[in-house]
Amino acid sequence: MAGEAGAVSQAKTSNTKERLIAAARDLMIERNAAEFSLQEVAAKSGLNSALVKYHFGNKDGLLLAILQRDAEKSLAQVERLLARDIPATEKLRAHIAGIIDTYGRYPYMYRLVHLLMRERGEEEAAQVLRFFVEPLARFQKEILQQGVASGEFKPVNEGFFYHAVGSACDALFSWHPGARRIWGVSQMNDAVRKRYSDFVVDLVVNGVARR
Amino acid sequence: MAGEAGAVSQAKTSNTKERLIAAARDLMIERNAAEFSLQEVAAKSGLNSALVKYHFGNKDGLLLAILQRDAEKSLAQVERLLARDIPATEKLRAHIAGIIDTYGRYPYMYRLVHLLMRERGEEEAAQVLRFFVEPLARFQKEILQQGVASGEFKPVNEGFFYHAVGSACDALFSWHPGARRIWGVSQMNDAVRKRYSDFVVDLVVNGVARR
Repeated sequence: MAGEAGAVSQAKTSNTKERLIAAARDLMIERNAAEFSLQEVAAKSGLNSALVKYHFGNKDGLLLAILQRDAEKSLAQVERLLARDIPATEKLRAHIAGIIDTYGRYPYMYRLVHLLMRERGEEEAAQVLRFFVEPLARFQKEILQQGVASGEFKPVNEGFFYHAVGSACDALFSWHPGARRIWGVSQMNDAVRKRYSDFVVDLVVNGVARR
Repeated sequence: MAGEAGAVSQAKTSNTKERLIAAARDLMIERNAAEFSLQEVAAKSGLNSALVKYHFGNKDGLLLAILQRDAEKSLAQVERLLARDIPATEKLRAHIAGIIDTYGRYPYMYRLVHLLMRERGEEEAAQVLRFFVEPLARFQKEILQQGVASGEFKPVNEGFFYHAVGSACDALFSWHPGARRIWGVSQMNDAVRKRYSDFVVDLVVNGVARR
């Protein structure tokens, strides 16, 4: 019986955490920024803001938890892609389109990485490196190395690749709408995201292709 | 005599403004962030912080003035490049290397554009668009169109190009040092900047090249 009570209480905890995470994520998506107060998370989730402190310590703990969930999904996706028996060029195309798709769904994600890595303590930076940046960079390196081995790609510095390409993938989402407007893109929608994705995929795949 | 006195007072004003701009710029370069107080600018320049208010209105006015000076230099450089009688591929190489070189000297620049465009009022965003984003984008468009006309480049969406490439150029500077470290790049120096520049130039030029 003690075990069952434990399981119920664990399920409740998990449900509370998920509701807080979902509320904070929605606020960031609405605002296109990592700006919210614990009171706003409480109001949106219908839970007490003290529960954030209880489950996550503080707002940074909540931000880390959100990024970690999002990262797990993204990394699982890349891992499945890596395991497929397809040419490196195809993997790279799917990988870049996948990053832009992820940023489209979670437009706060890239900025959250930078916020936690640059503007918080060394411990937060180390955590983000460990659960997101390093594994993602390792997966990319594998795709690039497969392409070099097969003769599809030129060898490139994988770290530079990670920085340049990740940043290019996010660029559409982080620019001010005014800057988009001058390009005839006044509203973000699926068609624009798709066109941007096709552009970045082509640029990068042709950029690393061995001629 | 009145004219001479006027010229002297104008020279003094200009000297004061330049000293305030130089002090704020140095603070941003030291901190790799647009974070400083007017008191710090006063201390660094040896001038009274009330002079910032007198000459620039407030800190945002000072930030805009700094970005405008930096933008003028960059745009003049691109304009000279455009006027040269060389193939578009060579212009594009020099242009991208020039952007990375500029970010290397003024590592706050890209983030300042985003800060003023995203986190301030519509008026600040409109100013940055007018004196920097739009002219730079027009110059890039000319280079790309020259390359399409000569058969060197594929046609691409110039707006997407502007967003993706500008962002990739900045990526080396905006990442947390911890993220650089995992790539064997622990310290930023001229050799690293040059290697990164060569990487981005190759990626982009090959990315848009017509095969």
